[in-house]
Amino acid sequence: MDNLLFWIVPAASIVALLFARIFYVGMMKESEGTERMARIASHVRTGAMSYLRQQYKIVGVVFIILAIVFAIMAYGFQLQNAWVPVAFLTGGFFSGLAGFLGMKTATNASARTANAAQRSLDSGLRVAFRSGAVMGLVVVGLGLLDISFWYIILDRFMDVTGPQKLTAITTTMLTFGMGASTQALFARVGGGIYTKAADVGADLVGKVEAGIPEDDPRNPATIADNVGDNVGDVAGMGADLYESYCGSILATAALGAAAFMNTGDEVMQLKAVMAPMLIAAVGILLSIVGIFCVRTKENANIRELLGSLSLGTNLSSILIVGATFLILWALGIDNWAWISCAVVVGLIVGIVIGRATEYYTSQSYKPTQRLSESGTTGPATVIISGIGLGMISTAIPVIAVVVGIILSYWFASGFDFTNVGMGLYGIGIAAVGMLSTLGITLATDAYGPIADNAGGNAEMSGLGENVRRRTDALDSLGNTTAATGKGFAIGSAALTGLALLASYIEEIRIGMARLGETFIQIGDRAVDLHQASFTDFMTYFDVNLMNPKVLSGMFIGSMMAFLFCGLTMNAVGRAAAHMVEEVRRQFREIKGILEGKAEPDYARCVRISTKGAQQEMIFPSVLAIVVPILIGVIFGVPGVIGLLTGGLSAGFVLAIFMANAGGAWDNAKKYVEEGNFGGKGSDVHKATVVGDTVGDPFKDTSGPSLNILIKLMSMVAIVMAGLTVAWSLF
Amino acid sequence: MDNLLFWIVPAASIVALLFARIFYVGMMKESEGTERMARIASHVRTGAMSYLRQQYKIVGVVFIILAIVFAIMAYGFQLQNAWVPVAFLTGGFFSGLAGFLGMKTATNASARTANAAQRSLDSGLRVAFRSGAVMGLVVVGLGLLDISFWYIILDRFMDVTGPQKLTAITTTMLTFGMGASTQALFARVGGGIYTKAADVGADLVGKVEAGIPEDDPRNPATIADNVGDNVGDVAGMGADLYESYCGSILATAALGAAAFMNTGDEVMQLKAVMAPMLIAAVGILLSIVGIFCVRTKENANIRELLGSLSLGTNLSSILIVGATFLILWALGIDNWAWISCAVVVGLIVGIVIGRATEYYTSQSYKPTQRLSESGTTGPATVIISGIGLGMISTAIPVIAVVVGIILSYWFASGFDFTNVGMGLYGIGIAAVGMLSTLGITLATDAYGPIADNAGGNAEMSGLGENVRRRTDALDSLGNTTAATGKGFAIGSAALTGLALLASYIEEIRIGMARLGETFIQIGDRAVDLHQASFTDFMTYFDVNLMNPKVLSGMFIGSMMAFLFCGLTMNAVGRAAAHMVEEVRRQFREIKGILEGKAEPDYARCVRISTKGAQQEMIFPSVLAIVVPILIGVIFGVPGVIGLLTGGLSAGFVLAIFMANAGGAWDNAKKYVEEGNFGGKGSDVHKATVVGDTVGDPFKDTSGPSLNILIKLMSMVAIVMAGLTVAWSLF
Repeated sequence: MDNLLFWIVPAASIVALLFARIFYVGMMKESEGTERMARIASHVRTGAMSYLRQQYKIVGVVFIILAIVFAIMAYGFQLQNAWVPVAFLTGGFFSGLAGFLGMKTATNASARTANAAQRSLDSGLRVAFRSGAVMGLVVVGLGLLDISFWYIILDRFMDVTGPQKLTAITTTMLTFGMGASTQALFARVGGGIYTKAADVGADLVGKVEAGIPEDDPRNPATIADNVGDNVGDVAGMGADLYESYCGSILATAALGAAAFMNTGDEVMQLKAVMAPMLIAAVGILLSIVGIFCVRTKENANIRELLGSLSLGTNLSSILIVGATFLILWALGIDNWAWISCAVVVGLIVGIVIGRATEYYTSQSYKPTQRLSESGTTGPATVIISGIGLGMISTAIPVIAVVVGIILSYWFASGFDFTNVGMGLYGIGIAAVGMLSTLGITLATDAYGPIADNAGGNAEMSGLGENVRRRTDALDSLGNTTAATGKGFAIGSAALTGLALLASYIEEIRIGMARLGETFIQIGDRAVDLHQASFTDFMTYFDVNLMNPKVLSGMFIGSMMAFLFCGLTMNAVGRAAAHMVEEVRRQFREIKGILEGKAEPDYARCVRISTKGAQQEMIFPSVLAIVVPILIGVIFGVPGVIGLLTGGLSAGFVLAIFMANAGGAWDNAKKYVEEGNFGGKGSDVHKATVVGDTVGDPFKDTSGPSLNILIKLMSMVAIVMAGLTVAWSLF
Repeated sequence: MDNLLFWIVPAASIVALLFARIFYVGMMKESEGTERMARIASHVRTGAMSYLRQQYKIVGVVFIILAIVFAIMAYGFQLQNAWVPVAFLTGGFFSGLAGFLGMKTATNASARTANAAQRSLDSGLRVAFRSGAVMGLVVVGLGLLDISFWYIILDRFMDVTGPQKLTAITTTMLTFGMGASTQALFARVGGGIYTKAADVGADLVGKVEAGIPEDDPRNPATIADNVGDNVGDVAGMGADLYESYCGSILATAALGAAAFMNTGDEVMQLKAVMAPMLIAAVGILLSIVGIFCVRTKENANIRELLGSLSLGTNLSSILIVGATFLILWALGIDNWAWISCAVVVGLIVGIVIGRATEYYTSQSYKPTQRLSESGTTGPATVIISGIGLGMISTAIPVIAVVVGIILSYWFASGFDFTNVGMGLYGIGIAAVGMLSTLGITLATDAYGPIADNAGGNAEMSGLGENVRRRTDALDSLGNTTAATGKGFAIGSAALTGLALLASYIEEIRIGMARLGETFIQIGDRAVDLHQASFTDFMTYFDVNLMNPKVLSGMFIGSMMAFLFCGLTMNAVGRAAAHMVEEVRRQFREIKGILEGKAEPDYARCVRISTKGAQQEMIFPSVLAIVVPILIGVIFGVPGVIGLLTGGLSAGFVLAIFMANAGGAWDNAKKYVEEGNFGGKGSDVHKATVVGDTVGDPFKDTSGPSLNILIKLMSMVAIVMAGLTVAWSLF
């Protein structure tokens, strides 16, 4: 490693963790308010932590099993390299740690935010947002730390020379992404089921049957609901983006190493590997700058609050564009100016998706307002219109991603479509660009559930009207940023998925080399294995769209997206039904609960949600891991690539549909509650509440889980490439 | 044409039309019953015919525009051959004619079925089923007639010699499929919007608000609802399957011609082209045998009634298997035994999909019963569970199709995966096998709305309880066969879509030849254009899954499926809203309507549905035609193939999801109405009615329209291949 610039990467990760610590300590210095506020916060904290412990136990078992499988593959059959089992475990560990720290912060912050909101709106925003920033910075900090660590270790100890070395390093590092993916899967699926079982259960009995308001302390499921916001939207979202973040950087580094392998230009190769890491590192520093710019004035309306957050994220984005040109110029990478443009493309795609999401899901715009209006003819038309809206809303994000793919490929390839290696590298760089400011965008995301919980805490503690108004404003802001954040998470998953797909081919190459192959035979030509291009591999493995194995893989990939969604939807339905029964039981059996004279058994509801989530997350998760392996064994490389592309294209569109339909239903209800079409308590309101309840698992369970499915299937394929190749050649 | 066996094809089509005529005349001899029954039937008939006239007017304009475009392409720029504009028009004309005749029969049959049901259940079944058979036989008869006609004409007048001749003939004939596709699109989309706007409108105000039963004569939208069954489920379904039927036969013939082109074996090539036509022709004859076997005894329960229909379809299926072996052996085609097995594969796949559909959507099985149970926690959980059920239900059909693809390819290729030409031919043959008994399967489909309308007529005419019970039994049977029929329609669309995809490559070859190209350059090899294999074309056009154009096409293809669905869902929502307003207005303004003293203004509701459907069908339809052309111009051949495969894989899965979710909601409501979970009028019933209403556009508008989208996009690509190639080379 002869490039001093590299040391910016671990340095930036340390800085990120340092600032996370500073923000955390600052937040902990705030008072939790009254004794009741502290007690409620402690209920939520205990519930969340006990859930996380349970989840980590189950995930631990899965990790041990998988690590044993990888160890057998690596040490028993030489189908994988020796570092893989260890790298896999650290990926899982760091991802889990990020989730744990983020949740610890979030659950400590809610009461403090409510208390700060007693002072002023700005104080409330500051506490909530900086606590969210802890999550954002922990994720990017730990991500880059893990990357730096492995890069240093492998660079020193890996027994390979020449241009193959960087390829070996980067593809090995990719496998720690599999650890992060697996952790993220359970976090998203389990967390998503938990949060929505609690939410749906609380709403159905509390709001609809008993007619008590949201977050009312008389509702036994209300603590579970607040816990759910933390395990789903903080820990789940964090693990999801941790994985996208690491995945995009690692896949791009691997593509960079591959692009320069056959030219043998080791200097340029190193630069191509460094570039994504450096962009990410500088992105962290600029995110911190952005975080410090977020503040607001008293009596700010929702638009002004949104402006405050946008100021921070936009500033970071603009700065990173300039910085990227500087970094790539300083690195002296060929075609640096156009490759930098790929970063701009990634950022713009992210912003376009975010904006489109806002347009289709915010009650400030026509689509959601019309959705509210459809409530005048009852719940059925609300559902029909919402599904229609969600499906139509897929057009702009898909077109944005397609334009992004083509442009970033075109720029990075030097305007030569046959330069596949550099073109794919460009797509990876666009993904890195989109995620470079994750430190601050994730802060705006994690801020949402903190504000939501602060509102819940204020309600349950009986704080004044004034405080409720402030926490409501903060919460409402959180809903909008959450929608935008989801758009970002989906867009980055699509681009990362593409980059991972390309990396899969690299793994195949390495897998063949490990088996002693030295060339591939294409027609009459024998091409040196290490010189073969992406297109050569496609021809060799017959990965074209007339191959029935590819087509079969595509069908199954599409189907997996739907099946996975269906399983998680039903899981929410079942878990919610248990919650409904429990809440009804408590209302029936605990005397005086509805008069506020007796305290409900919150802990029991927390346990039910925990148990439901634990049981229900296993089958879909195992399916996501097993199917790519099975397809590899049955249909070989063409089948796997079909599976990944089919899953990616259908899953991406399905994920947008579900996220946007869910978001729009949520806000259509809010729009009615703001006094339109009869307002709260009217028939229209009841109709939109049905939409909102249906939307809950759409936007918070099934939709976001698809992001992980897309990436995890690629990761599994990558790690299992050695097995697929061995089986194919055997 | 030196094969006498060919003449079986036109002969069978004449026989089909003859029997259709016989059944029609037989049905017309029945009495329409009382004057009131005849009047109601005449209302429905007039409404349906006036709708069809309106639709044909709009479709006529679209056809004229497209024919002019094709004429300019063919005569102006030599980008298409001279027969195309005419073939296109005949395809549209025959498809429209089949829809017209089917609907004429169906609307004449309803009162007669109700009247016959006064005699006995068997009489009712006989009249309804034989009227359905008219539709089935008209579709297959006209389809094969059109195919025979063009085959004879082109064989005589086409100015090509050698093995290119059959390729030229078959690919030209394919373009008349584009006419059928376009007609089908408008029929499905327009009919689907019409039927569900009327249905949802009638239900929302009539059943939910005014509390009057289904098909009550006091409901102003009830005639429109009955008209809708005819225009959607008879004319729409007929046009859909007409297109699948012709498309699968023509695509398979084209693949047969292509498979033997580079061997130069003209004798075997002719046999390969004949085979699908002969299988279809014999299938017609065996369908007629099956139709004669359908009868039942009085007091038959639903299972026995289903058994009666199954006897007919199963008998036809078993006979066609034996006949196929005989035909292919008599033809003396190479590998005849294994190619025959591809037909068996197609039939089994169709049956598996049908069975899976039944399992997931019939109230006799757990999934739908559990869906009813979810109504105990309100409408939201009904929707959540239904969507979960629908998504999970995609697994079996997809696996069945994948196994079918692999096996039929493997069998026909002589167990050699590199024999792409014969392998793809095998997939086509499987599609032909699945559709070979369409004469009778479509009869069981078209029977459904006839029985439904008979029930409506009986209700509105105030016939006795006994008659209602019989028509209810017939109607209930119709719902089950409709579900199975939908599974068949979707499965055949998927296989036909694949066969069309392969034919697209043939069109590209011909398009290049027309532009004077004689070879394609692959690396260092120059391959003769007419000798080049499918794989050569894939390599030449760089159609592999690392090409960003292919990936972009796939994303857009997936998105198209969702967008198209979303647009049609919203169209139903909007059209239904107008209907709701009108029905409310009539209840308000026409005095005595709810007491049954004044007659509602049925015609106005019919006009509203007609107008709504006409307006709303245009945008999604134009989109389906324009997008493949645009993608061809922007991304060339790789983009188009990406678009088609992406649309096919996502659209297929989405179509199953929508059809099954809708079917399950419908029957979950019925299950509650049968007295479970509180029965009619309970809160659970109200919750399941919401599910049923949401399911209406799922299963009858958006879901089925996807079949057409899948096939039409391929057809457009095929017809426009000349333009795409010219543009790419330019």
